Amino acid sequence: MKASDIREAFKLAERGDIISFAGGFPAPETFPTALVAEVAHEVAARMGASSLQYGPTEGLYELREYVANHLSGEGIECTAENVLLTNGSQQALDLIAKITLDPGDCVIVEKPGYIGGIAAFNQYEPSFAPVPLDNEGIRVDILEGLLRQGGPVGAGPVKLCYVVPNFHNPTGVTVSEPRRARLAELAREYGFCVIEDNPYGDLRFEGTPKRHIRTYDTGEHVLYLGSFSKVFVPGFRVGYAVGPEPVIRKLAIAKQGTDLCSNSFGQRIILECAKRGLLEKHTASIIDTYRKKRDLMLQALAEYFPDEVEWTYPEGGFFVWVTLPEGMNAKEMLPRAVAEERVAYVSGGASFVDGTGANTIRLAYSQASDRDIEEGIRRLGRFLKREVARLRSGATQNEPGSANGSLAPGAKLDRKEGIGAIGANR
Amino acid sequence: MKASDIREAFKLAERGDIISFAGGFPAPETFPTALVAEVAHEVAARMGASSLQYGPTEGLYELREYVANHLSGEGIECTAENVLLTNGSQQALDLIAKITLDPGDCVIVEKPGYIGGIAAFNQYEPSFAPVPLDNEGIRVDILEGLLRQGGPVGAGPVKLCYVVPNFHNPTGVTVSEPRRARLAELAREYGFCVIEDNPYGDLRFEGTPKRHIRTYDTGEHVLYLGSFSKVFVPGFRVGYAVGPEPVIRKLAIAKQGTDLCSNSFGQRIILECAKRGLLEKHTASIIDTYRKKRDLMLQALAEYFPDEVEWTYPEGGFFVWVTLPEGMNAKEMLPRAVAEERVAYVSGGASFVDGTGANTIRLAYSQASDRDIEEGIRRLGRFLKREVARLRSGATQNEPGSANGSLAPGAKLDRKEGIGAIGANR
Repeated sequence: MKASDIREAFKLAERGDIISFAGGFPAPETFPTALVAEVAHEVAARMGASSLQYGPTEGLYELREYVANHLSGEGIECTAENVLLTNGSQQALDLIAKITLDPGDCVIVEKPGYIGGIAAFNQYEPSFAPVPLDNEGIRVDILEGLLRQGGPVGAGPVKLCYVVPNFHNPTGVTVSEPRRARLAELAREYGFCVIEDNPYGDLRFEGTPKRHIRTYDTGEHVLYLGSFSKVFVPGFRVGYAVGPEPVIRKLAIAKQGTDLCSNSFGQRIILECAKRGLLEKHTASIIDTYRKKRDLMLQALAEYFPDEVEWTYPEGGFFVWVTLPEGMNAKEMLPRAVAEERVAYVSGGASFVDGTGANTIRLAYSQASDRDIEEGIRRLGRFLKREVARLRSGATQNEPGSANGSLAPGAKLDRKEGIGAIGANR
Repeated sequence: MKASDIREAFKLAERGDIISFAGGFPAPETFPTALVAEVAHEVAARMGASSLQYGPTEGLYELREYVANHLSGEGIECTAENVLLTNGSQQALDLIAKITLDPGDCVIVEKPGYIGGIAAFNQYEPSFAPVPLDNEGIRVDILEGLLRQGGPVGAGPVKLCYVVPNFHNPTGVTVSEPRRARLAELAREYGFCVIEDNPYGDLRFEGTPKRHIRTYDTGEHVLYLGSFSKVFVPGFRVGYAVGPEPVIRKLAIAKQGTDLCSNSFGQRIILECAKRGLLEKHTASIIDTYRKKRDLMLQALAEYFPDEVEWTYPEGGFFVWVTLPEGMNAKEMLPRAVAEERVAYVSGGASFVDGTGANTIRLAYSQASDRDIEEGIRRLGRFLKREVARLRSGATQNEPGSANGSLAPGAKLDRKEGIGAIGANR
């Protein structure tokens, strides 16, 4: 295990004069602070001790019911018994890995993939099989080829396929409906489990919501994960896993050994807000904030970034993904960006389990102020223009990918595959 | 993994007419509800968004400082950097196991031991080596014999030794100071790590506090765990691990992959109360409540229990441990106790990793009302007198231990050893 690049970047972001697009935290101005102050007081004063006692391992039953009703409205048929509340969906990833993975088992991850997911799985020593993305999300055709050949050579059986389908972290892309359908079919056909991790799905700025992968699943091969962190309050750490009852029971037993139960007070506050019908209202109220931030970033990128650089067009969520010319190394450049221009980002390499992706960057527009977005991208554009010129002038560069750690066991796909396919949305 | 007997017993306890000594929850009347209502409101209203954002993986720095200062006052020299805040100390157990255990590695557990600890370790497939307790706690002489012979035959290296030193769960006994000193010496000598799990230590009813095992440790071989759950509020899920900086850093990396961070709002509330000097005051104010409950239970036990039954004398904490005559099976009796007398307890067998202990019971006085303690023990005494008479009359009984699951791998100590040594305090 190693400290992640993103957490290290968070530390950078705490320095006052630096404009950071590193941390993908929600925008603080979206938090319902007055509401939480009022409801927290009311819950403790009215309910008294029962709001502060240990809760059930599975989470408060009424909040599980709320989640089940909410998701049923989106086509995922489920009841409270299908829902486990967790410490953010990150804990769901850990618990799923805990109950499914033996060392060497194969986990399919997106390339690039969410590093928090990769870190959760990595604790159980799997073989990773990275499958590239393009602007319609995970390349199910490449996945199918991999499955047909029996998975990566030398790896254990394919147990999990981890996908962030909407406004993907780190790339911002969304999986198309045909690919969602195919992914569910492949899971049934080859007997693995898809983890559909959807923390950003409710933050859609435009277009029609896509059907959840779970709704295509006829064989109980998809576990759906959601969270209140991005649409309400991250500091309560309340997420959820939704799946077949026997799986939820196993996850609950694992959670019992892991931390007994989640914090009940935060769950109570969320539940009280849900009862008042305020959760959906709140989500609807914050979408404009993020859409504006995205628009500002896309405008600034078009204005200030050099022609040689490409980036994605997110229809929602927090992130834009930037692809630099081959030969550039974003991780190695970062200290210079901070020193010369007081601007920070997350280098993308850690999102590639096969050690590629050195020339990629994740930019989060979620947390920066509107003013900082314009100024920060201006600075970063200025920096990148100098770096591109350096590259052109033949200044020494590292091999692509060389700074991004060793090849993960079982990671066998070609290094060049698919990366270039992202980032065509100027 | 399997659902624990204690969690199952919690469900029983929810039925209205049953007096339950099963769940070892804190007494609800000890919770500072009015204070939490006020402080929760103030924290959210005054601090705003920063009280609701994701927090650092290690926990709020100021609260880590508070813990470090508090423990330094008890002889454990440490700074904030030595402290990791966790989702209750249960999460610390999981994380420690995660970073130290390979399958087959040997974990020394008390016999009987805390089943939540056993469950946490068991997820990582260790060999357990149970070491018996007596009224001075873990038998360090037996432990030493085991270590001298190179650990249990067929098991991996001894990595961890898990001890609840004060008012032990489930037995209520406290480890004597000579044994604490010896345990720290053995850890250094044989190169394993002692986990000193101390959730109840501040709830001492009489006598002088014992030195922490960590204070005898000259070689950084003891990790100390504490919790705000028993002395303040369990529903916030805030515990802590204290140890050498490199270990804390490793645990933090593991926590990052496990759930990113703990709930920051609960930490803020605790911190605010700490700043006002209210945590120690609150702890002092609730000790009388628990002492009274213990006294009521001990009085009732003396009055109503049959002569053939023995129990421990806890100087603090939540639990009394009951040893029934050989040949009785507490797990098998439990449904009859509930049906015939509407009283519930936790059968002790699950606390013995070697499958013994069928004739033991844990009684928690922490959560029952004063009135229920007297009435419940009266009922249970009546029930036990009938059961003892049944045994005497030669009614069929199971073999001792046969109902308590299979022998754990690596569990090699004699089944009879040590159990009889507990429970001599009538």
